[in-house]
Amino acid sequence: MSESVEQQSCHVEYGYAPEKASYLRRLKLIEGQTRGIARMVENDQYCIDILTQVAAVTSALKAVSLGLLEDHLEHCVADAARQGGPEADAKLEEAMQAIKRLVK
Amino acid sequence: MSESVEQQSCHVEYGYAPEKASYLRRLKLIEGQTRGIARMVENDQYCIDILTQVAAVTSALKAVSLGLLEDHLEHCVADAARQGGPEADAKLEEAMQAIKRLVK
Amino acid sequence: MSESVEQQSCHVEYGYAPEKASYLRRLKLIEGQTRGIARMVENDQYCIDILTQVAAVTSALKAVSLGLLEDHLEHCVADAARQGGPEADAKLEEAMQAIKRLVK
Amino acid sequence: MSESVEQQSCHVEYGYAPEKASYLRRLKLIEGQTRGIARMVENDQYCIDILTQVAAVTSALKAVSLGLLEDHLEHCVADAARQGGPEADAKLEEAMQAIKRLVK
Repeated sequence: MSESVEQQSCHVEYGYAPEKASYLRRLKLIEGQTRGIARMVENDQYCIDILTQVAAVTSALKAVSLGLLEDHLEHCVADAARQGGPEADAKLEEAMQAIKRLVK
Repeated sequence: MSESVEQQSCHVEYGYAPEKASYLRRLKLIEGQTRGIARMVENDQYCIDILTQVAAVTSALKAVSLGLLEDHLEHCVADAARQGGPEADAKLEEAMQAIKRLVK
Repeated sequence: MSESVEQQSCHVEYGYAPEKASYLRRLKLIEGQTRGIARMVENDQYCIDILTQVAAVTSALKAVSLGLLEDHLEHCVADAARQGGPEADAKLEEAMQAIKRLVK
Repeated sequence: MSESVEQQSCHVEYGYAPEKASYLRRLKLIEGQTRGIARMVENDQYCIDILTQVAAVTSALKAVSLGLLEDHLEHCVADAARQGGPEADAKLEEAMQAIKRLVK
């Protein structure tokens, strides 16, 4: 992940640190739901019911992404903006790339 | 999942049956990637790197959805269309709802 | 648009024909909204307010797409399925490509 | 649009000002494409060909949104972050809402 912008302005902790336990819980849930979908396929369940579950997991992942992005903008990007200079621009550019991947 | 349309026209097997092993492999991979993301959060890795991984998983899930939907249209929905009657309409309506959830 | 599948099974009219007036009205509205957005840019209005309007137009276009797709599946694709043969497969494959472009 | 955050930190011009001519040109094009789609419906053209054109317009609108968002983050939001205080938070929150609408 050599393309990450150097991270001095994020200090010791990243933006998501205070929410770490919540993210871990949500990812655990997503992992379990994915296992549940595999079980549905294994047991030959109805395609549409499987699709409904996949949509639920996709939606949960999207919510995790938006949460991480918000934390990132509020902390790392805002801190960099306050310090200014080329790193502020680089942080914003990097965040925009992440937003574009999300919107795609 | 009581809202699923009765499934007689799907015969003994669903559309995804021939690809079952492939779907299970892909879901296993997605489960592992999700566990990897939790590990990144656990280890305080950089937000943007985590977001990149979440985007990869979301993209893999979308591909699974599109595959399941294609199998479903090619088999269950096409079979129902061939038999005609109200079940054909119900199958199509049900598939459209799944497509709408995907597009959202 | 040479890649369109030959269209004999769609008969004289396409699936959207009964809704033609409604689609034309909606597209007229979208055209007007787009002109309104240009006017907002022209008049230096606030970025976020412009973004809100662009989101409304995107959402209206998505609804038009889903409507057209539903009409297409209900008529052209279902008709082709009833007739069977390679054209049925080609129609479904073509519809899947359209769905993939929508989901992207 | 009363919910827009007060805009003092955006100074005299908004972030998209230097690109104004380019946005107007792109919106003009989108307006013309939308008119073209209405003409296709009017002339009973093939559903899939219409869907392809709608996808092109949706994609062009998405690009406009991302451009406006980038300009907004680089200027209004970054300026607010530099000034700090409650307005910086409000600007970020407002931008996040716009991002959520885009991602939906």
